[in-house]
Amino acid sequence: MLQPLVRAVDWRDGKCVLLDQRLLPVQESYLECVDFRRVVDAIRCLSVRGAPALGVAGGFAAVLAFHEIMRSTTVEAKSESFRSALQSISEARPTAVNLKWAIRRMEQCWARSGHFDASTYETLLCEARCIQEEDIAANRRMAVLGASWLQTRTEVVTYCNTGDLATGGIGTAFGVIRQAYAEGKISLVYCCETRPVLQGMRLTAWELERNRIPFRVICDNMAGLVLRGGTVGAVFLGADRIARNGDVANKVGTYGLAVLANHHHVPFVVVAPTSTFDAHAETGRDIPIEERSPVEITGVLGSKGAPSFPAINPAFDVTPHPLITSIVCETGIIAPVNEETVKSALELTQANR
Amino acid sequence: MLQPLVRAVDWRDGKCVLLDQRLLPVQESYLECVDFRRVVDAIRCLSVRGAPALGVAGGFAAVLAFHEIMRSTTVEAKSESFRSALQSISEARPTAVNLKWAIRRMEQCWARSGHFDASTYETLLCEARCIQEEDIAANRRMAVLGASWLQTRTEVVTYCNTGDLATGGIGTAFGVIRQAYAEGKISLVYCCETRPVLQGMRLTAWELERNRIPFRVICDNMAGLVLRGGTVGAVFLGADRIARNGDVANKVGTYGLAVLANHHHVPFVVVAPTSTFDAHAETGRDIPIEERSPVEITGVLGSKGAPSFPAINPAFDVTPHPLITSIVCETGIIAPVNEETVKSALELTQANR
Repeated sequence: MLQPLVRAVDWRDGKCVLLDQRLLPVQESYLECVDFRRVVDAIRCLSVRGAPALGVAGGFAAVLAFHEIMRSTTVEAKSESFRSALQSISEARPTAVNLKWAIRRMEQCWARSGHFDASTYETLLCEARCIQEEDIAANRRMAVLGASWLQTRTEVVTYCNTGDLATGGIGTAFGVIRQAYAEGKISLVYCCETRPVLQGMRLTAWELERNRIPFRVICDNMAGLVLRGGTVGAVFLGADRIARNGDVANKVGTYGLAVLANHHHVPFVVVAPTSTFDAHAETGRDIPIEERSPVEITGVLGSKGAPSFPAINPAFDVTPHPLITSIVCETGIIAPVNEETVKSALELTQANR
Repeated sequence: MLQPLVRAVDWRDGKCVLLDQRLLPVQESYLECVDFRRVVDAIRCLSVRGAPALGVAGGFAAVLAFHEIMRSTTVEAKSESFRSALQSISEARPTAVNLKWAIRRMEQCWARSGHFDASTYETLLCEARCIQEEDIAANRRMAVLGASWLQTRTEVVTYCNTGDLATGGIGTAFGVIRQAYAEGKISLVYCCETRPVLQGMRLTAWELERNRIPFRVICDNMAGLVLRGGTVGAVFLGADRIARNGDVANKVGTYGLAVLANHHHVPFVVVAPTSTFDAHAETGRDIPIEERSPVEITGVLGSKGAPSFPAINPAFDVTPHPLITSIVCETGIIAPVNEETVKSALELTQANR
């Protein structure tokens, strides 16, 4: 059974421990957070990123907030302070729904007792660990399901980062790639660099190398040429939020890649746990898209004397469901992707709980 | 009448003067070349780039080579040395055909006398200046033709760099954008950064700013999202070589952008002088694609401790002619683009000479 090679988010000795992903692939360095505000900052500045990992980090941040509030402030102010802390964690980044989903779970878990005592603290820590463990299990299940979907040995394209670094376990799309490679079904991975923050070249390439999977980094604009070559059998990638009709919000550039994959009749496969689905979003239009600082784009020019050109920096885009061949969840493979098939998959999840 | 704001390639006091484009937008610095080998190096390392500018630089490099050979070596060796020098200039970069086209013109010009004397030197210098001046004139003509093609005020997308820096004059696609903006037909330019060498963000953004044209830099992977927005009326870009059937080789990423433009029914307009057409290339498959060093891609990680991940780095791709709405040449607008319409346009050029 495949194991994660690294823990991007973990809980050790009363601290939330985060691998600082901004420093990769140059340096492997960990942040030890005892203050939930530090986790919020780490989420905002992308030290921790990836929709499922944000959910796990959110759970542990809620535990840190509870611990602080439990020991301070007056009894009357505790509930308000805790709710306010949960809100600030939940809003640290707007697009990935897993963060909000995890915080809602933590809030519901707390509301069952409503107390600020050691026993509730233990219950909350259990819930956060449960979020982490469920993600690890979902990763494993998706890896096996997704790999079974590949029929013949082929090259694949992947986008952004969806591995150990983006999840609790072996990854979503990256887990499928690891599993399929272990089964001899993948000959080469094209790893899109994923501008502007280069999650592909900095993080996925680093994970591919550690897993000894043959790969080539490409600039995002080379995907068309690679897909036209006829050697790629599938595109595997993750999701930050999926609407009820199957529209997928994911790292900016996903939409363009989906159009290209469709143009070349290459299957476009999204791998995401059910925690990524948003029952409140009817279509992709209901998903908020985070606009980040233009400096993420223009900063590559360096600082000495480089002009600050105006830029737009939407961090995500929405891919309409007709462009998506299938969505691999821990509950099964959704294909074709539409409102009905998504509904069935989510009802299955409800039934399982 | 629009004037170039900068001369990327020029001839002054017996020297070929090149704006060192590797240093832009941080520094405006010029290379003064008296040795043709220095021009060859400048072409190879992208100090000078852009298909038409390479033609102009090639012409001046041939003059420098002639001057050196005229004053040295034995009479017998001169022809061989000159031919060898011309070949090394011609082969400095493989994809843009304008370089080969200019060198063939210089060789034919020399062959008419076959001597190595001051008079032939003057004739060759005239021919090189003629290549430059013809390009300036072609730029002007294309700018007016291309702008007349735009019917209503709109936003446009452009790719790579096609302005003063890439040509002898005001640019190919960029000339059209300048002219159309002057005519009030363009409200905003989306400037794709163009990884890995960032000709869009470093050079086109610099030119847009100097021309006070409103623009936003975007990462190449954001083009899909921008085109989906419905505010873009056209994509304008250049070409490095056009086959007889209208297939276009241009900066890598052009093909993906063409697929996206077609998916959104946005006109995809190539602007290129007739010197960019290659009568020896039947289709895009006959165009050699330059593979450059992976360091151009992975170098963005910095040098200190960053791993050297494997990467592929094709500098160009080929867009099949059915994806191209029209090609704007100095002789007219080719639309639709196919073998017959391209043939007519080129015959027209022959007839004009």
